[in-house]
Amino acid sequence: MALIVPRTLKGFRDFLPTQALERQRILGIIARVYASYGFVPLETPVLEYADILAGKYGDEGERLMYRFPDKGERDVAMRYDLTVPLARVVAQYAELQKPFRRYQIAPVWRAENTQKGRYREFIQCDVDVVGSESPAADADIILAQRQVMRALGIENFLIRVNNRKLLNGILELAGVAEEEWIRALRILDKWDKVGIAGVQEELHGAKLSGDPKKLWSLLPEEDSDESEDIEVWFDRVGEELATTRDGGEGMQELRDVFVLLEAASPNGNLQCKGDPLLARGLDYYTGTVFETVLTDKPEFGSVSGGGRYDNLIAKFIGTDVPAVGSSIGLDRLMAAMEDLGLLQEQTATAVVYLPLLGDELQEDIFTLAEELRSVGIPTEMAYESGKLDKQLKYADKAGIPYVLIFGPKEKEADEVVLKDLVARKQSVIPRTDVVGELPTLLATVGEGE
Amino acid sequence: MALIVPRTLKGFRDFLPTQALERQRILGIIARVYASYGFVPLETPVLEYADILAGKYGDEGERLMYRFPDKGERDVAMRYDLTVPLARVVAQYAELQKPFRRYQIAPVWRAENTQKGRYREFIQCDVDVVGSESPAADADIILAQRQVMRALGIENFLIRVNNRKLLNGILELAGVAEEEWIRALRILDKWDKVGIAGVQEELHGAKLSGDPKKLWSLLPEEDSDESEDIEVWFDRVGEELATTRDGGEGMQELRDVFVLLEAASPNGNLQCKGDPLLARGLDYYTGTVFETVLTDKPEFGSVSGGGRYDNLIAKFIGTDVPAVGSSIGLDRLMAAMEDLGLLQEQTATAVVYLPLLGDELQEDIFTLAEELRSVGIPTEMAYESGKLDKQLKYADKAGIPYVLIFGPKEKEADEVVLKDLVARKQSVIPRTDVVGELPTLLATVGEGE
Repeated sequence: MALIVPRTLKGFRDFLPTQALERQRILGIIARVYASYGFVPLETPVLEYADILAGKYGDEGERLMYRFPDKGERDVAMRYDLTVPLARVVAQYAELQKPFRRYQIAPVWRAENTQKGRYREFIQCDVDVVGSESPAADADIILAQRQVMRALGIENFLIRVNNRKLLNGILELAGVAEEEWIRALRILDKWDKVGIAGVQEELHGAKLSGDPKKLWSLLPEEDSDESEDIEVWFDRVGEELATTRDGGEGMQELRDVFVLLEAASPNGNLQCKGDPLLARGLDYYTGTVFETVLTDKPEFGSVSGGGRYDNLIAKFIGTDVPAVGSSIGLDRLMAAMEDLGLLQEQTATAVVYLPLLGDELQEDIFTLAEELRSVGIPTEMAYESGKLDKQLKYADKAGIPYVLIFGPKEKEADEVVLKDLVARKQSVIPRTDVVGELPTLLATVGEGE
Repeated sequence: MALIVPRTLKGFRDFLPTQALERQRILGIIARVYASYGFVPLETPVLEYADILAGKYGDEGERLMYRFPDKGERDVAMRYDLTVPLARVVAQYAELQKPFRRYQIAPVWRAENTQKGRYREFIQCDVDVVGSESPAADADIILAQRQVMRALGIENFLIRVNNRKLLNGILELAGVAEEEWIRALRILDKWDKVGIAGVQEELHGAKLSGDPKKLWSLLPEEDSDESEDIEVWFDRVGEELATTRDGGEGMQELRDVFVLLEAASPNGNLQCKGDPLLARGLDYYTGTVFETVLTDKPEFGSVSGGGRYDNLIAKFIGTDVPAVGSSIGLDRLMAAMEDLGLLQEQTATAVVYLPLLGDELQEDIFTLAEELRSVGIPTEMAYESGKLDKQLKYADKAGIPYVLIFGPKEKEADEVVLKDLVARKQSVIPRTDVVGELPTLLATVGEGE
């Protein structure tokens, strides 16, 4: 039989143990932060009826979705994000208490162009509040995002916050026709990549209706972190904005959110900033929008983002249900953290390695291993007998910090030798004291590191 | 626009928060046990090239696999189990240190007949050792399975252990042609469902070659937990088995495994038993096989199972690589645990709920919530102001044990009221002492539960 070439699909990845351990550490931190804000987990299937997902993500979504007929000729599709499944769940289970505050951390699939460094399978970490239109829900979601960054050890970040209604007001004042707003917003959203001048050029090229000069005059003056404070901007354009259909509401909502964010920042370390130009790409946002940028690494773009989407659930149940949420993309976050030196390198789960120095000792090693595990010390043991040197090298390469030697000599003396591979020290412990002493001993040594 | 009916595909499930929390608790225990045995995590993609998976699972596997052409017309398939992807990984990454001891906890997909109560998306919890042919690897895997059961609070279980080579020896002695062994093994494997008599009837009906009488005479005498001890059975048939190609080796291997299991059971609580009739359905097992049954709930069948498969990786690299592993099916395990009353009912992640008793207090509540979260107390707060009664009901229904009241009266008095919804007690704490005192206070109350 011909051999099968072992390989992975383009855009799909294996995570070998060292990577998988770090991914799990980071996902664990994110889940714990979400839980500390009282969000509860939800799990939905990888496959959905295609009509559940279709028509929710724009043209690109239709093109990139993994969609196929299943064995029963049902039209099915792989999960494309975690928001639409949430909308389905809320529509499907009337018994869910509102506000429904859930998090979901799970992979999604998109047949992206991998040449752009994108993956076709990637993990999203979503947190959403469904059933409250209060700005308190928006602020709570933003605080959870801020706390994730802090818990991950990221110090220099900024959450840019805006409200779609403000942008609607600007476009209305500039005389842009409502059916062109989404197109215009997509262009405005690029300012952090192409600058204000670039945005103006693109808007010009897009031949939108309305008065371009008027539009420019309403935009903030600078496109940098030192751009005018949102309240200064409000002073300048607020009166005019308040005359539009959505503008006044947008200002009020944005102010309400910031009052709460400030209340939750007693030390003054807000790390959130109003940004009238932020639009976020997705069509379905209706109010607050926000995204997190790492101020030391702006080249990574936003590592998390989200907003309010009050109309999405209506596609299932016919009436609007207010909702606001946020998503963290694990890949971009970890790439930025790597660049910042914030990733840890753990290669082993075991803390102690037990070498085997003679087949006749295998039973003793099994007894010892189970004793160590029973007192909470993660332990790996050798399955094959060999020279101590070689086994020490194995443990070292595997990243296991301690080796507990119980060879023929130690058995004779009824003791064990504990080797600290990191500090390159060793100590002798009576065999009968291992279970009693090792947990304290390792904890003490660990503290000194 | 017509409404889309919110629904899930047959055989696919949503896990609402209460279920999801319990699933995560149990998966967390399993992962921690695997890690305590020094196994390290591996992640592989959900989609693989179809030829990676094809031809590994027998006819059933080919029929039940989710397989489709992707956007680039590549023939792809969804993960069907976690063993074949492991074999691929070992073949693909020569740099992996051996033995490679990994665990993987992830969903797999099979288009099963859902009328049999089977699901099409379900989680497997696998642990494997690749690169060691020592019986120590087999024993270590079995010990990890045993410890999972114990860590989950399951007291009455038994791990049945056998060796495929013993069964080969029996079939050889009975004169069954080698090409019929797999068929015969599949029938033998059913003894716990249909009894020895049922097995004999099926073997008869299958018109296998060889001497049925001889086969009966070699099988153990009783099909119950009180069936003859494996050593008694070895005394009876061992001498004859040792004359076969595989039988002697099988006996030796099984004995080696039990010596190590006994060494790891100093209190004599082995919870493992030799069972010469255990075959396990999968074709690729080559030596040790085992499965875990809950002795109080035999009707659930095996909740975990596995064995040695020394030839599978050769399909990728041409030379045999020894491997042994085990898999836990989360659904069956949780169904059995529910029946045993071992599932917990946690409905909330938040420990404290902050009601909102007046819009003017929202900022104060935000400040308080962030303070509590900053000292490790998971906190949910109300987004909308309302009557205290209604908000207490919300917290109670959500399963949040404590409510911290900071209404207009409390603000005036500069204090908070802590309500314990479970013990139906309350106490008053000065506002300034909340952060300092609450962690201890909640911990103390918690201990008393």
